[in-house]
Amino acid sequence: MIDLEGRVKLGEGAGGEMMQELLKKRVLPLLGNRSGDPFGIPPDLLDDSTAWDDTAFTIDGHTVWPLIFPGGDIGSLAVTGTVNDLAVVGAVPERIALSMVIEEGLSYDELDRILSSVGEVSRKCGVEVVTGDTKVVESGGVKGMFISTAGIGTRHPSLDRCLAGDDMGRMGPGCRWLRDDRLKVGDRIILTGSVGDHGISLLSFREGYGFETEVASDLAPLTGLMDAAISAGGVYAAKDLTRGGLSNGVNELSQKSRTGILLHEEAIPVKEPVRSACDMLGLDPYEIGNEGKAVLAVSRKRVDEVISAVRSVDEGKDAVVIGEVTDRYERVVLETAVGGRRIMDPPYGDPIPRIC
Amino acid sequence: MIDLEGRVKLGEGAGGEMMQELLKKRVLPLLGNRSGDPFGIPPDLLDDSTAWDDTAFTIDGHTVWPLIFPGGDIGSLAVTGTVNDLAVVGAVPERIALSMVIEEGLSYDELDRILSSVGEVSRKCGVEVVTGDTKVVESGGVKGMFISTAGIGTRHPSLDRCLAGDDMGRMGPGCRWLRDDRLKVGDRIILTGSVGDHGISLLSFREGYGFETEVASDLAPLTGLMDAAISAGGVYAAKDLTRGGLSNGVNELSQKSRTGILLHEEAIPVKEPVRSACDMLGLDPYEIGNEGKAVLAVSRKRVDEVISAVRSVDEGKDAVVIGEVTDRYERVVLETAVGGRRIMDPPYGDPIPRIC
Repeated sequence: MIDLEGRVKLGEGAGGEMMQELLKKRVLPLLGNRSGDPFGIPPDLLDDSTAWDDTAFTIDGHTVWPLIFPGGDIGSLAVTGTVNDLAVVGAVPERIALSMVIEEGLSYDELDRILSSVGEVSRKCGVEVVTGDTKVVESGGVKGMFISTAGIGTRHPSLDRCLAGDDMGRMGPGCRWLRDDRLKVGDRIILTGSVGDHGISLLSFREGYGFETEVASDLAPLTGLMDAAISAGGVYAAKDLTRGGLSNGVNELSQKSRTGILLHEEAIPVKEPVRSACDMLGLDPYEIGNEGKAVLAVSRKRVDEVISAVRSVDEGKDAVVIGEVTDRYERVVLETAVGGRRIMDPPYGDPIPRIC
Repeated sequence: MIDLEGRVKLGEGAGGEMMQELLKKRVLPLLGNRSGDPFGIPPDLLDDSTAWDDTAFTIDGHTVWPLIFPGGDIGSLAVTGTVNDLAVVGAVPERIALSMVIEEGLSYDELDRILSSVGEVSRKCGVEVVTGDTKVVESGGVKGMFISTAGIGTRHPSLDRCLAGDDMGRMGPGCRWLRDDRLKVGDRIILTGSVGDHGISLLSFREGYGFETEVASDLAPLTGLMDAAISAGGVYAAKDLTRGGLSNGVNELSQKSRTGILLHEEAIPVKEPVRSACDMLGLDPYEIGNEGKAVLAVSRKRVDEVISAVRSVDEGKDAVVIGEVTDRYERVVLETAVGGRRIMDPPYGDPIPRIC
C-alpha cells in the first residue's frame, strides 16, 4: 500500500466532501479568482454548469470502467453527463466538444461502438458534436480511454416564466438560472426516480457479482424531463445525481442554500436489487450514483403541476416528492418510516470508483 | 510487440495523416453529420476551433509527459493550447473549462505547481477558468494526469477590417473567421519564429539526451501576436504549430484550400541545437511540434505591415516570410538553398509522442 500522505487520493475525485475540500482548499485558490470576487468562491463555480448572458457552459471528464457496460458505454455516458449538467441549470443543450484520450491497442470495434453511441445520444438530445480532439497514448498510459466533453447551451425559453411565480425574493439579475443556492423554506424536493441504479449496475458487472441481469444503468438524458419541469413552472433548483448519489445532491443544495432539508425515507424509491446489493456489500444506496435522475427544488404552490409534468416524461415516470426545505434543521435530515430521524451526511470519499 | 491489426495505433493521435484518416474514415461518419451537410465534412470541423455567430469554441486533450518540463508544465500547456486554437481563428479567448483526470498518488506539490500555472497563464491571457471537473483514478489508470481544456472566445473586434481588404472573393457569410481553406494564389506565408523547439526540448528532457540546457520549450500564448496581426489587417488564415509541426500546419492549409504552397527552406528558422538534435536522432525539424509559433497566410499587399506588427510582439520577434501560395504546384513544395525542390509531405504518424 503506497503512503498517500501529501498525495492525491482516490476519494478526492469522487464528488463528495473530500473533493469539495480539494477544490476549495487547493484548486480554486491556485487557479486564482474572478474579477470582483477576490477571496470568495463564486456561487456558480461549483454548480453543474456556469452561465453568463443567455449561455451555459460545462465540462466533464469521463473515466468509467469498463468502457462498455449494461445500459451504455463511455460514449453515451459522456454526452449524457454533459447534457444533463446543462439541463439542470435551465439550459437547452446545443453544442458538444469531444476530447478523447485513447490507449494504443484499443480495438476499432470498441471505438466504433463508443463513437456510434456519441452520435446516437447526441441526435436524441438535439445536440451536435461541433469540435473535438483526439490523442493516443502508449499502452499503459491510460486504461482504455477517457472522454472529456464540454457543452454549451442556451437559456430555456420558459425559464423566465418558470422563475416568475416566485414570491420569496429569489428573482433579480443574479437569479436567471436554476441554482443550487436558491432553496427557500417551504420548497418541496422532488426525486425523479429510483436511486443507485447506475452505480450498482456498473459495480456488479465489473466485479462479476452476478446480479447484473437484475439492475441496469439508468443512463438517460434529462433534457425532456427538465423541459417538462421548467415549462410547468416554479422550479428553482435542480441537480442530476451522479457521483455521491442522492446524498451528495441534496447536501450540496442544503449547504449552498444554507437551509435544512427534511427527507422522508419511505418516499425514496430504491429498486429491490439495488437495495439487496447494497445490503450485501455494505453500501448506502443514497450514496450510489445515478446517470438519469435528478432532484428538483420546487415552489410548494407548483409542486402538483411539476410532478405531473415530470411523470409525463418516460425518464420521470416514477417521480415523487421526497421532502421539503425547512428551517428546523441546518442540514439534511432523514425521517425514517417509524418516525426516527437521522442526519444524512454527504459521502466523504468514493464508495464505487470509476462509475462515470 | 502487440499486434495492432484492428486496433488504435499511437500515430492515429499524432495530428498527421494517420489521424486525419482516423477522423475522416471513422470518427466523423460515426458521430453523424450536421444539418445541411449530409455526407460531407464541414470545413471548420477539423479547423483549430469551430465558430458560430460571434462565438468560437474549441477543446484539447493534454497528455504531455513528463507533467513538468523545461519551460512549462501540463497546466500552462493546457491553457496555452486552447487559447492558441481560439486566437488563430480570429477569436479573443475569454473562458476556459478545465477537466482534470488525476492518478491517485500524484503529489500535491506537483498538482499545486500545475494548478498555479493554469492560474498564471490564464491571467496573462485574460481568460478565466469558469468551470471544471476533477476525477481521480486508481494508480495505473492514467500515467500522471491528463487535462482537457475547452475554450470559448468572441470574434476579434478588428476581424471585419482585417478581412475587408480582400479583393479575391473570400468574403461573405461563410468567411467571418480565419480559416484553413481561405488561401489564394499570391498570399504570403509568414512563420512567427523558429520551429521544433518544444518537441526537441521535451524529448531531450524526457529521454535524458543531455542537451536540454540548450533548447527550451517555446510554450507561449499567441493572443498578443494574433491581436497585432489581425489589427494590421490582411490576414486570412492562421495555424498554431503543434503536433506534426510546420509540415503538418502548411499541408493542412494547402489541402483544405486546394492550393500549392512554395516554401523557401533557407528562410525557415531552426535553432542550431534543434537542428543538431534532429540530425542526431534522424528527425525532420519541420515535423516537430511547437507550442508558441504559428503560420499566417497574408495578402501580398499587406505582408510588410503584418510582419512589422508581428515582430513588435515578443513572441513574434523572429517572424519571417517563408513562402507563398502558388498554382504551380498542388502540394507543399520546399525550395532548398541551392534551388532544388522537393515535396514536403505531411507527417504520417508521430515522431515524438506525448509532447502535448
